[in-house]
Amino acid sequence: MRRFRVDNCSIERTLAVLGEKWTFLVLREAFNGVRRFADLQALTGAPRQVLSARLARLVEEGLLRKVPYQEPGQRQRDEYRLTQKGLDLHPILISMMHWGDRHMADPEGPPVLVTHRGCGAPVSLRMTCEEGHEVAGPREITPRPGPGLRLNAGTPGAGSTTTPGAA
Amino acid sequence: MRRFRVDNCSIERTLAVLGEKWTFLVLREAFNGVRRFADLQALTGAPRQVLSARLARLVEEGLLRKVPYQEPGQRQRDEYRLTQKGLDLHPILISMMHWGDRHMADPEGPPVLVTHRGCGAPVSLRMTCEEGHEVAGPREITPRPGPGLRLNAGTPGAGSTTTPGAA
Repeated sequence: MRRFRVDNCSIERTLAVLGEKWTFLVLREAFNGVRRFADLQALTGAPRQVLSARLARLVEEGLLRKVPYQEPGQRQRDEYRLTQKGLDLHPILISMMHWGDRHMADPEGPPVLVTHRGCGAPVSLRMTCEEGHEVAGPREITPRPGPGLRLNAGTPGAGSTTTPGAA
Repeated sequence: MRRFRVDNCSIERTLAVLGEKWTFLVLREAFNGVRRFADLQALTGAPRQVLSARLARLVEEGLLRKVPYQEPGQRQRDEYRLTQKGLDLHPILISMMHWGDRHMADPEGPPVLVTHRGCGAPVSLRMTCEEGHEVAGPREITPRPGPGLRLNAGTPGAGSTTTPGAA
């Protein structure tokens, strides 16, 4: 029913890395500056093995990097720090937080306000276009084929990059 | 180790509704204007029972609403349309897509470009504060206690709204 294929969809590939509650909660704490296993465990409530697996995956995907540290009298351990690729996730977490604040908060309001360090005013995400226009919402945008678009086999114009039978 | 509780975290509550790959893929198609079960199934690749369960949950949470339709000679069916609460998810999906475009795309580039309907220029999400300042990234923001912040029991200032033993 659609002429193009979705197997290189950027949302789907993002979810292949992030598509799971604990991963997002670990990232929430990473953005809060939490770096150590025991602290991440206490703050997310993730079972130890789950946390261990999620951290390994985030390191493997290049979103976190391990940095050794050693407390006096203890063995050396690793802490986990956001890479640039990880830091670039920030708008995803902020947009989730703002949606939750708007639609899921308790009657008394959101638990946390995200404010500009410089002036203390609350921050928000705005959609604008490269011409500088404000884009009010989903009805004001149009998807266009990008350079990586793949056509379905059998579609006029479909070239050798399409694989019949693939997702 | 932290004085405040995270059990009313807006990110966590958002994930309670959305924290799963198929849910996001259904929403991706909903934003693409896809409304019918068979089309959603074909385009997401979700198993029938999974799709059925995810749609029921999205309706229950008020992100989609069911609207009956009837093709000639067929029984009446429901299609699924985004509510305002669902439409408000748009920045989450756009920010996921842009992160995937930046970090997960094939060498030839992103499959889809999101452009402003008015002028055709690509759109992006920018973080600004209410004073109008551009906020460049996570290091320029500070979290502050919101009206719904809950203190941990035993913390000086913790009131009757905290429940010892709760998450």
